[in-house]
Amino acid sequence: MIKTIEWKNGAVKMIEQTLLPETYKVITVKNTKDMWHAIKRLAVRGAPAIGIAAAYGTILGIQNSKAKNWTQFKKDLLKTTRYLATSRPTAVNLFWALDRMVACAEKNKEKNISDIKKILLKEANLIFEEDRKICRSIGKNGLKVVKKGSTILTHCNAGGLATADYGTALAVMYAAHEAGKKISVFADETRPLLQGSRLTTWELMKAKIPVTLICDNMAAQVMKEGKIDLVVTGADRIAINGDAANKIGTYGVALLAKAHKIPFYIAAPKSTFDFSLKNGSGIPIEQRKDEEITCGFGKRTAPKNVKTYNPAFDVTPANLIAGIITEYGIIEKPTAAKVKKHFKL
Amino acid sequence: MIKTIEWKNGAVKMIEQTLLPETYKVITVKNTKDMWHAIKRLAVRGAPAIGIAAAYGTILGIQNSKAKNWTQFKKDLLKTTRYLATSRPTAVNLFWALDRMVACAEKNKEKNISDIKKILLKEANLIFEEDRKICRSIGKNGLKVVKKGSTILTHCNAGGLATADYGTALAVMYAAHEAGKKISVFADETRPLLQGSRLTTWELMKAKIPVTLICDNMAAQVMKEGKIDLVVTGADRIAINGDAANKIGTYGVALLAKAHKIPFYIAAPKSTFDFSLKNGSGIPIEQRKDEEITCGFGKRTAPKNVKTYNPAFDVTPANLIAGIITEYGIIEKPTAAKVKKHFKL
Repeated sequence: MIKTIEWKNGAVKMIEQTLLPETYKVITVKNTKDMWHAIKRLAVRGAPAIGIAAAYGTILGIQNSKAKNWTQFKKDLLKTTRYLATSRPTAVNLFWALDRMVACAEKNKEKNISDIKKILLKEANLIFEEDRKICRSIGKNGLKVVKKGSTILTHCNAGGLATADYGTALAVMYAAHEAGKKISVFADETRPLLQGSRLTTWELMKAKIPVTLICDNMAAQVMKEGKIDLVVTGADRIAINGDAANKIGTYGVALLAKAHKIPFYIAAPKSTFDFSLKNGSGIPIEQRKDEEITCGFGKRTAPKNVKTYNPAFDVTPANLIAGIITEYGIIEKPTAAKVKKHFKL
Repeated sequence: MIKTIEWKNGAVKMIEQTLLPETYKVITVKNTKDMWHAIKRLAVRGAPAIGIAAAYGTILGIQNSKAKNWTQFKKDLLKTTRYLATSRPTAVNLFWALDRMVACAEKNKEKNISDIKKILLKEANLIFEEDRKICRSIGKNGLKVVKKGSTILTHCNAGGLATADYGTALAVMYAAHEAGKKISVFADETRPLLQGSRLTTWELMKAKIPVTLICDNMAAQVMKEGKIDLVVTGADRIAINGDAANKIGTYGVALLAKAHKIPFYIAAPKSTFDFSLKNGSGIPIEQRKDEEITCGFGKRTAPKNVKTYNPAFDVTPANLIAGIITEYGIIEKPTAAKVKKHFKL
């Protein structure tokens, strides 16, 4: 599989995803500031991968800490995690990973600083390793909803490039492909940043899964022509009732799927759930800059000074979701009660 | 208003729309082959403007005809019109204008060739002049559905750049603006060729109508946020029952409008109706080349050899259309009976 992100020799190696598919380049991120920018510019993206990047970004921030005691160390640690938390607002895995790193440190605060640093690196590696296993479980659990010969539509990229190695939505496709289900995929290009065009097609072509690229506005027509059997996307934050934030355009795809009686699934790990939120209205939606829309392709394609509106995410209400595929199974027609039961909360 | 296309000194002057908004360039088209390519590459586009271009393209093909009699002349004429008819398959105005030119020639076949040529040029100019008046009437008739302070979503460009000077969908906006209704507009960028981003915003900004540019996949979210009061788009071909072909993505927008209880209108002249078609299933949908999706703007944004699907149009069924605004009034909740009555067929 693709090595999206890994810890190596005291630094983070990651694919510079903004350059794909034309250029495959692995960058080395050596400090927290560079990690903040890498997350911000989407060099690393996808909710689970952002969580891993945040965990390793925390290590980058504290590994050279001169702190002699817990009070000093905690100050350095929180300075790092609070800074990384400002990189992007929507994906909850970012905050989940940072909180987990801080909690791990707190739990070991009686130990000496050098040991705490080692324990934190182990914790970051554990987040990485867990994500690999979680992705495999999501893929396996998703098999149930994929009939032989199905064509699956997906939006954005929730693949190996968005996780430790196997993806969430794409995990379902990889697992189905490996199980000999002879699936094929339609990939929405996913404006403005074209994660579908640049990343999803690239991954699926590498895996030899037949994929057809369309513009986002073609999804309705493709559905009308009877080409799509089901939709599977990832998510960036899911409220306890099942309302799911994902890349802008997902909500529209879910409405179109409903209009064509096509089941719409979300694939996401437990760490993407925000159990503090009753519903999706509390999920903050990142607004991004004009240029992504007006100069997206290396060339200005809109008049200067045109006003734009550029939300990076939208929220799909639970009532449009046939099921949420997690590492524990599938939450069918999600509700708060079912989500709580699923995770034994 | 913008001079999208005009006849001048034996040739056609037109804006090279593929270069907008960065470069405003007027090209001179002197022969039928160049006109064919101008239509094909979308230098001139929009159903009514394509009709005008086809009429003038016919003149370019016959003005230097050496024919001495009607039989020879008709051969030259049909060679020209049949060639122009192959430029694009969906917009019916193309065939409507070509048929009208041929019928006009037939009607005058007893006259001498030099006179027939003059009569045909008059006919082409008449198509142009009629379109100006029709657009104004559509704008005026559309006023009825636009409340003061409304925000209108549109898809693609059905403006002055798609017609002789005032547009169809945008005619409604120009008329409402001039009537002091203080409207504002959301423009879908309209992938793959970005007519919304490049052309609609450019026109509306020139007219000082507030416009906000969004990616196509943001329309659902903008509707959900309550920002849109109505949708108005143009059309490329309308069947007698009201099913309407328009730029790819329009069908999806109509479904999203329905889901949010937002009225969806089509604005189009009589010449866009194809009374020979019972419903939209008979409308041919142009498929365009991969590169529009994979290398749209001076840069490759998808892997080499990726498979694409690139329909240029889709068909919105009449049951999603609140009304069709024509130069004669509004056909509310269109049906075949209402369309026939509206046009006194």
